[in-house]
Amino acid sequence: MTNTDIKIFGGSTGKSFAQKMCDYIGIELGKSEVLTFSDGNIFVKINETVRDHDVYLVQPIGLQPNDEFTEILFWMDAFKRASANSVTAIIPYFGYAKGDKKDEPRVSIRARAYAECIELAGADRILTMDLHSSQIQGFFKKPVDHLFALPILSDYIQNMRIEELVVVSPDVGFAKEARNFATSLQVPVAIGDKMRKSHDENAKVLEIIGDVQGKNALIVDDFSISGGTLVDLAKGLKERGANKIYAALSHLMLTEAAVEKIENSPIELVIGTDSVENEATLSKKIKTISVAPLFAEAVVRIHNRESISSLFDTVPRR
Amino acid sequence: MTNTDIKIFGGSTGKSFAQKMCDYIGIELGKSEVLTFSDGNIFVKINETVRDHDVYLVQPIGLQPNDEFTEILFWMDAFKRASANSVTAIIPYFGYAKGDKKDEPRVSIRARAYAECIELAGADRILTMDLHSSQIQGFFKKPVDHLFALPILSDYIQNMRIEELVVVSPDVGFAKEARNFATSLQVPVAIGDKMRKSHDENAKVLEIIGDVQGKNALIVDDFSISGGTLVDLAKGLKERGANKIYAALSHLMLTEAAVEKIENSPIELVIGTDSVENEATLSKKIKTISVAPLFAEAVVRIHNRESISSLFDTVPRR
Amino acid sequence: MTNTDIKIFGGSTGKSFAQKMCDYIGIELGKSEVLTFSDGNIFVKINETVRDHDVYLVQPIGLQPNDEFTEILFWMDAFKRASANSVTAIIPYFGYAKGDKKDEPRVSIRARAYAECIELAGADRILTMDLHSSQIQGFFKKPVDHLFALPILSDYIQNMRIEELVVVSPDVGFAKEARNFATSLQVPVAIGDKMRKSHDENAKVLEIIGDVQGKNALIVDDFSISGGTLVDLAKGLKERGANKIYAALSHLMLTEAAVEKIENSPIELVIGTDSVENEATLSKKIKTISVAPLFAEAVVRIHNRESISSLFDTVPRR
Amino acid sequence: MTNTDIKIFGGSTGKSFAQKMCDYIGIELGKSEVLTFSDGNIFVKINETVRDHDVYLVQPIGLQPNDEFTEILFWMDAFKRASANSVTAIIPYFGYAKGDKKDEPRVSIRARAYAECIELAGADRILTMDLHSSQIQGFFKKPVDHLFALPILSDYIQNMRIEELVVVSPDVGFAKEARNFATSLQVPVAIGDKMRKSHDENAKVLEIIGDVQGKNALIVDDFSISGGTLVDLAKGLKERGANKIYAALSHLMLTEAAVEKIENSPIELVIGTDSVENEATLSKKIKTISVAPLFAEAVVRIHNRESISSLFDTVPRR
Amino acid sequence: MTNTDIKIFGGSTGKSFAQKMCDYIGIELGKSEVLTFSDGNIFVKINETVRDHDVYLVQPIGLQPNDEFTEILFWMDAFKRASANSVTAIIPYFGYAKGDKKDEPRVSIRARAYAECIELAGADRILTMDLHSSQIQGFFKKPVDHLFALPILSDYIQNMRIEELVVVSPDVGFAKEARNFATSLQVPVAIGDKMRKSHDENAKVLEIIGDVQGKNALIVDDFSISGGTLVDLAKGLKERGANKIYAALSHLMLTEAAVEKIENSPIELVIGTDSVENEATLSKKIKTISVAPLFAEAVVRIHNRESISSLFDTVPRR
Amino acid sequence: MTNTDIKIFGGSTGKSFAQKMCDYIGIELGKSEVLTFSDGNIFVKINETVRDHDVYLVQPIGLQPNDEFTEILFWMDAFKRASANSVTAIIPYFGYAKGDKKDEPRVSIRARAYAECIELAGADRILTMDLHSSQIQGFFKKPVDHLFALPILSDYIQNMRIEELVVVSPDVGFAKEARNFATSLQVPVAIGDKMRKSHDENAKVLEIIGDVQGKNALIVDDFSISGGTLVDLAKGLKERGANKIYAALSHLMLTEAAVEKIENSPIELVIGTDSVENEATLSKKIKTISVAPLFAEAVVRIHNRESISSLFDTVPRR
Repeated sequence: MTNTDIKIFGGSTGKSFAQKMCDYIGIELGKSEVLTFSDGNIFVKINETVRDHDVYLVQPIGLQPNDEFTEILFWMDAFKRASANSVTAIIPYFGYAKGDKKDEPRVSIRARAYAECIELAGADRILTMDLHSSQIQGFFKKPVDHLFALPILSDYIQNMRIEELVVVSPDVGFAKEARNFATSLQVPVAIGDKMRKSHDENAKVLEIIGDVQGKNALIVDDFSISGGTLVDLAKGLKERGANKIYAALSHLMLTEAAVEKIENSPIELVIGTDSVENEATLSKKIKTISVAPLFAEAVVRIHNRESISSLFDTVPRR
Repeated sequence: MTNTDIKIFGGSTGKSFAQKMCDYIGIELGKSEVLTFSDGNIFVKINETVRDHDVYLVQPIGLQPNDEFTEILFWMDAFKRASANSVTAIIPYFGYAKGDKKDEPRVSIRARAYAECIELAGADRILTMDLHSSQIQGFFKKPVDHLFALPILSDYIQNMRIEELVVVSPDVGFAKEARNFATSLQVPVAIGDKMRKSHDENAKVLEIIGDVQGKNALIVDDFSISGGTLVDLAKGLKERGANKIYAALSHLMLTEAAVEKIENSPIELVIGTDSVENEATLSKKIKTISVAPLFAEAVVRIHNRESISSLFDTVPRR
Repeated sequence: MTNTDIKIFGGSTGKSFAQKMCDYIGIELGKSEVLTFSDGNIFVKINETVRDHDVYLVQPIGLQPNDEFTEILFWMDAFKRASANSVTAIIPYFGYAKGDKKDEPRVSIRARAYAECIELAGADRILTMDLHSSQIQGFFKKPVDHLFALPILSDYIQNMRIEELVVVSPDVGFAKEARNFATSLQVPVAIGDKMRKSHDENAKVLEIIGDVQGKNALIVDDFSISGGTLVDLAKGLKERGANKIYAALSHLMLTEAAVEKIENSPIELVIGTDSVENEATLSKKIKTISVAPLFAEAVVRIHNRESISSLFDTVPRR
Repeated sequence: MTNTDIKIFGGSTGKSFAQKMCDYIGIELGKSEVLTFSDGNIFVKINETVRDHDVYLVQPIGLQPNDEFTEILFWMDAFKRASANSVTAIIPYFGYAKGDKKDEPRVSIRARAYAECIELAGADRILTMDLHSSQIQGFFKKPVDHLFALPILSDYIQNMRIEELVVVSPDVGFAKEARNFATSLQVPVAIGDKMRKSHDENAKVLEIIGDVQGKNALIVDDFSISGGTLVDLAKGLKERGANKIYAALSHLMLTEAAVEKIENSPIELVIGTDSVENEATLSKKIKTISVAPLFAEAVVRIHNRESISSLFDTVPRR
Repeated sequence: MTNTDIKIFGGSTGKSFAQKMCDYIGIELGKSEVLTFSDGNIFVKINETVRDHDVYLVQPIGLQPNDEFTEILFWMDAFKRASANSVTAIIPYFGYAKGDKKDEPRVSIRARAYAECIELAGADRILTMDLHSSQIQGFFKKPVDHLFALPILSDYIQNMRIEELVVVSPDVGFAKEARNFATSLQVPVAIGDKMRKSHDENAKVLEIIGDVQGKNALIVDDFSISGGTLVDLAKGLKERGANKIYAALSHLMLTEAAVEKIENSPIELVIGTDSVENEATLSKKIKTISVAPLFAEAVVRIHNRESISSLFDTVPRR
Repeated sequence: MTNTDIKIFGGSTGKSFAQKMCDYIGIELGKSEVLTFSDGNIFVKINETVRDHDVYLVQPIGLQPNDEFTEILFWMDAFKRASANSVTAIIPYFGYAKGDKKDEPRVSIRARAYAECIELAGADRILTMDLHSSQIQGFFKKPVDHLFALPILSDYIQNMRIEELVVVSPDVGFAKEARNFATSLQVPVAIGDKMRKSHDENAKVLEIIGDVQGKNALIVDDFSISGGTLVDLAKGLKERGANKIYAALSHLMLTEAAVEKIENSPIELVIGTDSVENEATLSKKIKTISVAPLFAEAVVRIHNRESISSLFDTVPRR
């Protein structure tokens, strides 16, 4: 099989990402269209035969998650009913990932609900990146190829050659991932921790567990929406004597308001990926690195029956 | 069991309908809340115990169909994980119902995709009204209690005592339903038919199969969105000598633009139901009849293990 | 892959159709046998290896529908347990197709029950023709390749060069399909409509909506069993001044009594297909056109990963 | 709950058995009807509300197994779509039970195919008697309450006070069940064994393993269709010096030809049950004992949440 | 319903826990037995009728996880085939919980595999405590009632009135849970962190993020097997000037060797629960608090259709 | 495809059997490892890419059945999540096979529970030998390729040229299989039968149905664990005048105690296969014939899309 057999299609918010993947591989983007009617109904249509082919559909679940999710269902159903041999749902950002547990009574585990509907609709494999928790893989019964932005982000940071760096987790829940990031950069880790004051239920004080005085700080997180936590933490770090503040986010889920907030904050630079379409280009303080080549390379390996885990060995690291 | 055991909850666009049902039965609306975050993620929460109860969740799939559908999935999942004994999804209007077949190659049968996801998420029974085609019941594996607006609309029309009435179907596809409507009113039926002219692919000419000259016409349809077909047909009927023009729609799926179009048309009055929230109140030409009592009565019968089909025998008809 | 890799088997009432398909493709019919024991039990046996092959089993669900359906279940199970790679159930006529809705309380949606049992038993794809309603595709989760007799029947009619033709639907429920037929022939459409008289519940009067006076009429329907509706309508058309009467049926589901009834009716000619074995050869008034080449061509395209929808572009039409 | 809450319905060949059960319990038979159309399609209809009730449907899979099986599917589907709380399929005789293994390559395990379709269609529990092999219970995922005719048949035999009795199995495959029968009667067992002669593939010689000389023989089997094996064995036993010959069959699956064959054989009496409708009344040599009271008692116990296994302790045995 | 209707059964390693639950509620333990044959096959048997009852089966997945898991499968299957109305699997400790993600290529997500087999076998609800990660709830489709040992352990600690306490997480992965524990005690948190030295791959240095000097430390974790991490951390805390060292574990999964290691360590006291049978009684340094009353109370609430989440409001907290 | 594409892996107790299969085919054993932790948790890991390959995993369910079964689940899950195209579970001995029915109330059908969990975990095909009952194939939905040891054992016996041989079944339940064995050797069959004495419930007397006086006896059975039945029967045969006693077992499931018991019994020789690892090498009275070549040949045929049933035609038989 040659790479020209690969058929990649893009959903309404995944089309540009899909195009970048096709450019990397050197193939044409699959022909398809999406219509949205005045009653909000969407209609997907595949415009070339996919009979007995292995197809790939790119669609993040980002800032209009329910529309994007519904569209994925319709694509899966359409590909299967069109007799595709297998369908891989490429979801660079998998929204609702915070809905991975029942931390209150009588709520839904939304990521599981999404996962099983996507499988029911026909997905044979999922290709995604930096899930909010790695347990989400277990919400799927089908194989999930889980990519990581860390090597790419970490490389970029290392090339900046920042002295006296400390990686900072915004809270204890992200401490493990922050530790991994710090290990890759061979620097120490600190952890933000918001504690409730004893006599006032609502007032919370930010503590920093670990030493940041006189250091340059790299806040790491999987995504940010309003930018609130990020900017508050940056201020707190400054107050505790931190030098320059940077941030690395896997997914640049940023509303316009968030971009403005970052623009006006003590943060020097936010580094992230193009896993989801956003307003990041509005600010020079935000650097977007494309992970489309990473996804494209994964698809080539899937197509050629090669290991994807070995993909991470080939990314140069220092 | 007394009716006070019935637990009805309302989703974000079903709350007012659910409240009307509760008022009819004389019970409190179930306590719950829906949050929408800045990243578009929705979060549903049940605020009272439902353990081992039979619960009813009201949510149409209307003008924001994907959000409403996703919310239904989360409600079903939340009720099931909260150990409800059974969950009935009350969907007064079931959107995507036109997506009930594959009339083009390589498209999705969207109504089936919706149906099976709703069942997977946990629905034990569906209560709905005037599906676009009655075959959609067969897309569900679980029992569907299918209500009809016809007796209520027909009663209303009969009370208007319009002379020389003819029921008009907008096209051949709705001819059977129009025939049923005409039978209930004991009047003849005519059928709109758009035919392509022989030498010009795009130009279509409206034909009316059957006699409308000098008659008052009642156009019937299951729903209208833009109002376009409705108004065009009304004009066509006028041209062919019809007298006054009325319309009866099961579901008042009308955008603001559609309401305006009706306001400025030769149509005297559009009669429909409140199965979906809309802008109908903006025009005096639109009369909305509530079907909440019909749904409430169905729930009482479900609760009391009585027949729902007999429900239609009790609606007075002439 | 060459066409000689294709393996087509015939069930007890599909064997001759399967043989015609094999003849068209130029391959041998798959070796198999069916036994029926004195207790009514049937026993199917595949007499050649099918390990890892894509196989096709031909069996209509016609005049002994329960036996034919049961046999399909056993074939699917046998092929799957014999490690076939995929099994396509070719069901030229899919019986019970009128059982596609719950138009009375407390009945079964029989077509859905059949569809899901056939899938459970192991069918990976369905190949069928002119389903009673196209929604039935949605009763299947697996891909359905849905063929149409219309182009073939329409071609035949056009070659007859009948002047002043009008297509007649037997009732409002078939109006849409009749409209499509009329469009393909570029002639007008009329609709039969049986109306109840006001003071007598049982007596029904046949109305013809649309103009048939002085025209030659082509009644179209998907199938007829007793021939009753067909002959009654032909008489009604005659009474309303129609000239010659023809009929086109997708499926010649005709009992011996029906053939006799047609023989003695004012109908000139009934044109249909060989999708189901029947007594049609008993009458010169019935012309059977084979659709086995159509099905064979579809199988070749499935085998060669080509589009089936494009199949209809290649049938010459005027 | 009182027994009057029990709702028992009869399928087309189970109606008289169901009526006997209702008579035993003292309730009315559930209202329902079955139509068979001229195209062989069957149509089932429940004529009273079953909403939230536990219902029981009686239908053996006997001499028209495919029709009876299909009917069971439609009943299950209809009851479920009519919102029954649970449906128990009472199948006094479960046909296709010999199809419980793959003893040749590329055949279907037909009893499994039947079992899973019945469950898919909606059966929540199965009530049956004397399955061909007890492993068939494992083909069902749902609970199977498995009744035994042995105590009833054994009681009847014991009351006949036959001296010097030996129980004879028709072949080694039924040896275990014959051993159980013999144990219940406290008499020895012998086994029929057809052996192939060394130089002729087809000629088989009947051997009797064990001693029958001068004894009265009771041949036991689960069912007989043609009566052939039974009569051959009876003759063989006579040749080996057996005295009087009796037979006990769980299921009187007998064609008219079989009844005649028995009538003309050395067999004194065949004792069996009414699990399936048959022609047994044609011969005085056949004694039918009703097991409807046994099934009725089981239903009462299911209804009253009592043990069914204890049912067998209450049948008086010596 | 009165509590005497509750039927609780114990598996081979859950019997004593089940007995404690029954004592709390005031009911008899359900009659059942488990046999283990010489070939390692286990055989479970329910010795009283459970027809239409809601039953509870207690069995942790502890130190013989595969035997205990298999036994749960057989219990679920046996209860379902015995027509129980519903079966709740009470798994006080759910082993394989660390197998909740694919952190290496080509491994199994073992907790998901366990979860879905338990559901397939028949479990209708799971009742468990302190899962290794709360996402595991999402591996189940059925409702999981998730209890927490924290309030009970926290109460016990508070009654010890230890001054200058700091809660210590053994690593960054447990930081969030440790933060919750600290919040409940209103004390600060510190985090153990093992870092690789730059030039030697294997040597790891323990860091403590946060301040422990002169404080009494409470190490918290969900379980410990060998006691190694616990004792190493205790020593590390001592080296950094910590005063007295305590530990609180949800599950006392301790081998005999682990108990000895704790006995000889600087740890003053380990506090845990009886969720799994172990050797904890061998050491006076280990205090076991029974959570059987907590589970019993949950069952009573399930039985009485009350909220379980409210259970945690009734545990007195300061 | 060449045979070098075949990928065979061995589980912890199937590794040596898998190695023998690889040696036969001439390929390398697949790289993998199994770890068992101190808490009894097992962890499986595939150490080479299997993406899109058809893989075979060898693991009997023998003397630690629950560990072996759990390991199979984890292997299946790991292979599927690693994107294997298909996974065949090779289970030379399938334990729990006696758990194939509900011969007592309220027990589990354990073989079905095992079968469906193995399928759920991901097995696409099962390859096994001499199931306790052939109905167990029907517990699987996926194809089961069922091999037989009989031709191999029978060949071995025939080469021993034993005069005056009689095949003896240990009880009536195995009579059919014994009859097949006898047919293959063209010798008569006798059947052991333990009967209860009339006045003493527990005392059982062994009867031999059929003639063994002065003959050499070959006891046949599918497996033996304690050797008890085997040795008792051997003694009984001796008492009834049998000459030399041999035994042929499909599966040498023998504990050390059983081997000793055989060593000290009148049995001359026990012949069996290496389907399960055991202590058989401890005794010269036990001859183990490897079936690894038989399984390897089956895998080659599966791989080459050839018939497996024809495999038995190629084994030379007299």
